[in-house]
Amino acid sequence: MKKLKVGVIGVGRLGYEHAKNIATRVPGMELVAICDFNVEHAKEVAEELGVEKVFQDPAQMCADSEVEAVAIFTNTASHVEMIKVAMEAGKHVFCEKPLAENVEKCKEAEAIIEAHPDQIFMLGFMRRFDHSYQVAKKKIENGDIGDIVLVRCYSQDPRSIIEGTLAYAPKSGGQFIDMSIHDIDLIRWLTGSDVSKLWAIGGCYEFPQYKEWDDGDNVSCLMQMKNDIMAFFYAGRTAAHGSAVETEIVGTKGMLRIGSEPTDSLVQVFSEHGVCRECYQDFITRWQDAYLKEMEVFCQYVAEGKKAEPNVYDGTQATKIAFACKESFLKNELLSLD
Amino acid sequence: MKKLKVGVIGVGRLGYEHAKNIATRVPGMELVAICDFNVEHAKEVAEELGVEKVFQDPAQMCADSEVEAVAIFTNTASHVEMIKVAMEAGKHVFCEKPLAENVEKCKEAEAIIEAHPDQIFMLGFMRRFDHSYQVAKKKIENGDIGDIVLVRCYSQDPRSIIEGTLAYAPKSGGQFIDMSIHDIDLIRWLTGSDVSKLWAIGGCYEFPQYKEWDDGDNVSCLMQMKNDIMAFFYAGRTAAHGSAVETEIVGTKGMLRIGSEPTDSLVQVFSEHGVCRECYQDFITRWQDAYLKEMEVFCQYVAEGKKAEPNVYDGTQATKIAFACKESFLKNELLSLD
Amino acid sequence: MKKLKVGVIGVGRLGYEHAKNIATRVPGMELVAICDFNVEHAKEVAEELGVEKVFQDPAQMCADSEVEAVAIFTNTASHVEMIKVAMEAGKHVFCEKPLAENVEKCKEAEAIIEAHPDQIFMLGFMRRFDHSYQVAKKKIENGDIGDIVLVRCYSQDPRSIIEGTLAYAPKSGGQFIDMSIHDIDLIRWLTGSDVSKLWAIGGCYEFPQYKEWDDGDNVSCLMQMKNDIMAFFYAGRTAAHGSAVETEIVGTKGMLRIGSEPTDSLVQVFSEHGVCRECYQDFITRWQDAYLKEMEVFCQYVAEGKKAEPNVYDGTQATKIAFACKESFLKNELLSLD
Amino acid sequence: MKKLKVGVIGVGRLGYEHAKNIATRVPGMELVAICDFNVEHAKEVAEELGVEKVFQDPAQMCADSEVEAVAIFTNTASHVEMIKVAMEAGKHVFCEKPLAENVEKCKEAEAIIEAHPDQIFMLGFMRRFDHSYQVAKKKIENGDIGDIVLVRCYSQDPRSIIEGTLAYAPKSGGQFIDMSIHDIDLIRWLTGSDVSKLWAIGGCYEFPQYKEWDDGDNVSCLMQMKNDIMAFFYAGRTAAHGSAVETEIVGTKGMLRIGSEPTDSLVQVFSEHGVCRECYQDFITRWQDAYLKEMEVFCQYVAEGKKAEPNVYDGTQATKIAFACKESFLKNELLSLD
Repeated sequence: MKKLKVGVIGVGRLGYEHAKNIATRVPGMELVAICDFNVEHAKEVAEELGVEKVFQDPAQMCADSEVEAVAIFTNTASHVEMIKVAMEAGKHVFCEKPLAENVEKCKEAEAIIEAHPDQIFMLGFMRRFDHSYQVAKKKIENGDIGDIVLVRCYSQDPRSIIEGTLAYAPKSGGQFIDMSIHDIDLIRWLTGSDVSKLWAIGGCYEFPQYKEWDDGDNVSCLMQMKNDIMAFFYAGRTAAHGSAVETEIVGTKGMLRIGSEPTDSLVQVFSEHGVCRECYQDFITRWQDAYLKEMEVFCQYVAEGKKAEPNVYDGTQATKIAFACKESFLKNELLSLD
Repeated sequence: MKKLKVGVIGVGRLGYEHAKNIATRVPGMELVAICDFNVEHAKEVAEELGVEKVFQDPAQMCADSEVEAVAIFTNTASHVEMIKVAMEAGKHVFCEKPLAENVEKCKEAEAIIEAHPDQIFMLGFMRRFDHSYQVAKKKIENGDIGDIVLVRCYSQDPRSIIEGTLAYAPKSGGQFIDMSIHDIDLIRWLTGSDVSKLWAIGGCYEFPQYKEWDDGDNVSCLMQMKNDIMAFFYAGRTAAHGSAVETEIVGTKGMLRIGSEPTDSLVQVFSEHGVCRECYQDFITRWQDAYLKEMEVFCQYVAEGKKAEPNVYDGTQATKIAFACKESFLKNELLSLD
Repeated sequence: MKKLKVGVIGVGRLGYEHAKNIATRVPGMELVAICDFNVEHAKEVAEELGVEKVFQDPAQMCADSEVEAVAIFTNTASHVEMIKVAMEAGKHVFCEKPLAENVEKCKEAEAIIEAHPDQIFMLGFMRRFDHSYQVAKKKIENGDIGDIVLVRCYSQDPRSIIEGTLAYAPKSGGQFIDMSIHDIDLIRWLTGSDVSKLWAIGGCYEFPQYKEWDDGDNVSCLMQMKNDIMAFFYAGRTAAHGSAVETEIVGTKGMLRIGSEPTDSLVQVFSEHGVCRECYQDFITRWQDAYLKEMEVFCQYVAEGKKAEPNVYDGTQATKIAFACKESFLKNELLSLD
Repeated sequence: MKKLKVGVIGVGRLGYEHAKNIATRVPGMELVAICDFNVEHAKEVAEELGVEKVFQDPAQMCADSEVEAVAIFTNTASHVEMIKVAMEAGKHVFCEKPLAENVEKCKEAEAIIEAHPDQIFMLGFMRRFDHSYQVAKKKIENGDIGDIVLVRCYSQDPRSIIEGTLAYAPKSGGQFIDMSIHDIDLIRWLTGSDVSKLWAIGGCYEFPQYKEWDDGDNVSCLMQMKNDIMAFFYAGRTAAHGSAVETEIVGTKGMLRIGSEPTDSLVQVFSEHGVCRECYQDFITRWQDAYLKEMEVFCQYVAEGKKAEPNVYDGTQATKIAFACKESFLKNELLSLD
């Protein structure tokens, strides 16, 4: 049982979760190095997870010959630089979404990755690996719902964390690039097609601050796919019930709905509020199995030397569409994508 | 379109609902007379519903030759007397449940009704006529769930009306006779069998007052039917969520659950309490269609001259079992029914 | 208890249901006349419902001085003519949706109705009167969900009746005018606003026949309201599960979902398909209480001499928007409404 | 990060899952030895999981000084012998439920464990560690549902695996000892009390074979706890929908229901069967997180040197009650427990 030796760059909130998964829950992986510009924090995490090698400089970690694969969880603006460093050092690379902060940078990433065709690159659109999404995808492929007519995607952040959301907003790239990009990827993955036309709208229904950042606190978008499937997504920052991601696929012979009630457990509470299902407040809790699964899948791609999915082009396309959404939203115009 | 001319005895809360149904919503019926010992109230209801004849004395109303059928909604203790008066006056009779306050009185009712075989008698176990129960019954008869293994029945009164519940408790006959009698009838109806053995337990979990009335605020009972089907019922007075009636039928090939979420509407509320369905607070709202339906069915039995169901023997049997439950509860012993 | 004397024009499927409601279930109404160009059918219905007066000619019925109000359930193309005849004969008028087959005809209706300001006119957007929609509306007005951000409306016809749907399609006006007009009215009613911009898309995902009628078998539309609320509707002809109408209102402080599971009863079926709720196959069953309720409300408007809602302008606006949807769909362009 | 070195005895279906968990998913544990009387199979599992030491003889494995803790997943009849061997070798012990095949053997286990007070012993009633049960327990302790009135437990095996169920039945000890023992433990844990009286019934509703083994294919039991709480459990072998475990706690101020819909994913399927949630067919899938969690908790008990729960007495009590259920079932009598 040979294990893939992994170095992690960035052990902030999500990076820490991934590092812990790699160290303790992915049978095929071994965490051998941790890198973070906050080297003190990196040391603490390494101590906790029993990792010996700690770095502040990603290039140094990538130069370590023990490291076979690099997993990147730094801020978006540094993704492409990190990919470059790791790829050029001959490592396989897993990179958290979004690929980059704009389309030009995505194209740079494409060039780097294409220059190293024997190294595996995989992008972290983890929703694809969630058990419920896997079940739905299988049913679709099995023809259970006939041909796809409409995909509807909701992503909501809980109102309960609005202060953190607002603090992060200015550097997030906005709702379309930061949040809806997941749904854009799901739509491409589920429909097997790309966007032909789109119209995005929204506004500041409660938090006028978003206007300053050319953004809205709640936005939505209607899309016509190249294969004529309809797609609609909605993203909001003010969900009273929690962290909610719902996806629906309407087909000519049936319909699938994923996460219609974003429940935290199998408990129903009968109280003066009626019959209630309590919800997740935290996206990491919701997706913890998917975060684990995508790492197992990456590990398997490396073992088999197979091209991974989602790949760099999925990252570029999702970014391109997210920027088109933002443009449509700002101009309030219908846009055609080439 | 000949209409059945009905006189109503008792226009308290439930009687008033029935009177209104008869007057305005049952196509085959016409409300021609109202009788209530509170004659002033009877006059008001008659005025509202456009009924000309008002009586204080049931015998007088039953002597009116225009009246073809009598519907009885007086207190339980007077049911058998009212049945007698109406039957002897040659009328068809509909009587609200329970049939009588004890088994001896039920036997008296049997004798009266047997003495008038050409007049229709029907007992108001309305749950049988609820759309959901009809759907379930049809599936069972259709063999959809195979042979019945277990029936589970819950009846809960809302905590929100506990003051009224407590005020009514001393004269109600107690939980088994007043409340669980509905579930006892459902169990007999669904299993097509009678009780062989039973053990009833419970207690005063919050309201010690019930002890004074030889009763509990929450009780339950396990029954073995003559055909070996298992049956369990639970009755409670302190439901936080509302007026809840749930029935489950477990079969060898499937399972049916009725009213698992006793919802008041099709609205889901997403709030800080999670995803909630609000519930009925009021049994009349829950059963309004069943109250209407049973009257339509009674009307049809009369039109066709057919023996009605639920009949007087259903009333006697349910009462007999309810009293056995009470006895088992008080002695804390297993009882065999002959 | 004075009753409003009503004459009905058109006793096809839906007209018959309304006639029966008026005759037997609306306490404040009396059905005194029935008119249908198929006079034999009118006679049968009259016989069944105990109505003496039968007409083939609407003008003749409207000339009858006993008739106080006229309820119109003829085909859409004759609505305005029927309104004219009834209004000019001095009657109050209830008219089934849609108001008319195009905007010009709606304007004609406006003129007629404005010329008779003392007569009540009400349009039959019955969904507004459904219990669940009333519950939701009250919660919104109560501020329970804060400010409205997004309204989402789904209307689906069951696949099981596709033959009838196809047969009716050529003369229906198409999905936007025939089906989505209900959702357009709901959106206007729930948001308290009118459409500013819209983009409608869709296609023939299974039944190419719709192309011949400049229509799709599944369509959708994104709307921006004048008060910046977002609205999305979807309409489909091929729902495997039944006749489904779902409406969602996302607010800044909570969210309401109506009819997410379009259940036919309170029965859950546990079988080899999992835990299932069976659905309505028939819109009349779904809306029977709303059809009744709107008639009671109309009756009350007449009794109180109050302007009714939904009114003729609601009919015109919904029609205008539906035609804009169709235009947007055919041109595949974003449209601004003046 | 010192890891607890664990040896596993028995790597059949469930033992294998546990071995894999210990080897790859429990951060605080290291799997160092595997023992199975089928030593070839033990070698394969060891190979897969990267474990060096393989044994056929438990005593030999327990003699290995590297092994700090032993986890027992052999057949029930050998549990006490394995506990003895491991305890006397100075190891901490985790033992899968049930503790033993009868009460006398449970008492033997008690004596062995009491003789080694410094070694941790924990029994594998894993349901207590499931996230949903933990959520419910916390709400109860928090007083959210007031005082407990009734606990209801359902355990159902899927009809789809009936052949395996039947094959295993003769040596399983029967429904009460093999299956309901989980619910008996839950009832004791949730109510914080022991059984005072019980009456168990049931029968062979479809598979007469169970009669030969003094068992039923579907059974149930009503219990009165020493603190007067009511408890009801039902166990069945013929569930059409899957592997279902449902638990309900009715309190004076609210009600909790766990696993009412034993769903396999967050996917709702809208089809000709209605709106369906598909169910687990496999108990290992349902409880995989609980199996993991209980191992983490055991690890923590060892690290902290704290008495573990569930303990040996929980095993004895559950066994005692399960045998009383069987006796009551066979005699069809109410039983009092001392």
